[in-house]
Amino acid sequence: MREIGELAERLREFAAERDWEQFHTPKNLAMALTGEVGELVAELQWLTPEESLKVRDDPEAAARIRAELGDVFIYLTRLADLLGVDLMQAASDKLEDSRRRYDPESYRGSARKAPPLS
Amino acid sequence: MREIGELAERLREFAAERDWEQFHTPKNLAMALTGEVGELVAELQWLTPEESLKVRDDPEAAARIRAELGDVFIYLTRLADLLGVDLMQAASDKLEDSRRRYDPESYRGSARKAPPLS
Amino acid sequence: MREIGELAERLREFAAERDWEQFHTPKNLAMALTGEVGELVAELQWLTPEESLKVRDDPEAAARIRAELGDVFIYLTRLADLLGVDLMQAASDKLEDSRRRYDPESYRGSARKAPPLS
Amino acid sequence: MREIGELAERLREFAAERDWEQFHTPKNLAMALTGEVGELVAELQWLTPEESLKVRDDPEAAARIRAELGDVFIYLTRLADLLGVDLMQAASDKLEDSRRRYDPESYRGSARKAPPLS
Repeated sequence: MREIGELAERLREFAAERDWEQFHTPKNLAMALTGEVGELVAELQWLTPEESLKVRDDPEAAARIRAELGDVFIYLTRLADLLGVDLMQAASDKLEDSRRRYDPESYRGSARKAPPLS
Repeated sequence: MREIGELAERLREFAAERDWEQFHTPKNLAMALTGEVGELVAELQWLTPEESLKVRDDPEAAARIRAELGDVFIYLTRLADLLGVDLMQAASDKLEDSRRRYDPESYRGSARKAPPLS
Repeated sequence: MREIGELAERLREFAAERDWEQFHTPKNLAMALTGEVGELVAELQWLTPEESLKVRDDPEAAARIRAELGDVFIYLTRLADLLGVDLMQAASDKLEDSRRRYDPESYRGSARKAPPLS
Repeated sequence: MREIGELAERLREFAAERDWEQFHTPKNLAMALTGEVGELVAELQWLTPEESLKVRDDPEAAARIRAELGDVFIYLTRLADLLGVDLMQAASDKLEDSRRRYDPESYRGSARKAPPLS
């Protein structure tokens, strides 16, 4: 499976088989996304930035983080699907905006000016 | 662009051109993801679940939400890339777990039992 | 214990006794706060707004939510203490701002205009 | 104003004067809390932990962070009030739990073991 559209389709089936579509409103899914992001953040909260770069060296932590990333992506895909948003296109459009807004010369290496990646 | 790997590659270039790799630790990116999810949630906070299903009928709100979904996906992709995680595979694995854990008969239509999509 | 300053003092002692001050940077505590808010949100994610108003009728859910509110308040108090912010005064100032910005006549009962409480 | 109960009372009046009680369900307020925490986290996302300890030296950033802390506390107080939870007591109870669970000798200075403050 390489296409987000295929994941979205499988999530649709998953919800339909359990009669869970009634719970999958954008509002509820945004809350579920919040909960999963909170679990992801909790895995990194006490690490230094440098330790967070090496978290792959701890197989148990790495597995938990991989699972949380999977959960976040699942809810993000399901939410975007319900809202009719093409995630890849939305990200691509935002990246183009950022390319224009943050020209490499003016913003090079600046933490102060660097807040938004996009 | 249909592949997450291609988006990840473009984000790598974007960061490198601005010398922003120094800011893109997993810890920092998890915080950036939090901020973007917060903006997404804020768009839906005062809507009823029913209104949230029809948010597409409001073109301005829909455009803002699409942009926030793009931001969330950008940071999620960048974070997964830095951690060496294949988002699609991680999501697919979690979905298979959920298929096993929540068999359709036992969990049909149950809000109480339905909390985790994955 | 009725004063936030007293809670802050007890949290200082708690951290000092365990030599955990090294982990309690504002950055780390903001992430811990995120994790706790995520757990709180997860308790309410599949409820309708109406059900969320009656969550007290479910003693087990109510106890879990009370515990999450306690966790959120603990990290918020610890973070504010480290930053030298008087939470009560900061909230009071923001509320006064909101009183000025949202005059009751213009904003009465308007969801569209009502997003910010503060 | 030193008592949380007094802040809660003023927030009740603020909502009533604008007929905004209809929007202030626990579900909606938990989402509003998420949005404000996201704004707070965004202020700290690109700082190192060490920089985050010195953020008071930047008056503009310090003012923004103080305002965000005020917003977070406002929504937390309003949410707890609607749920009938005494924040100070809930925090105190959680702190006592943590005192018992993390005895100072066993958990001294350990990042691995230190995740939960409470």
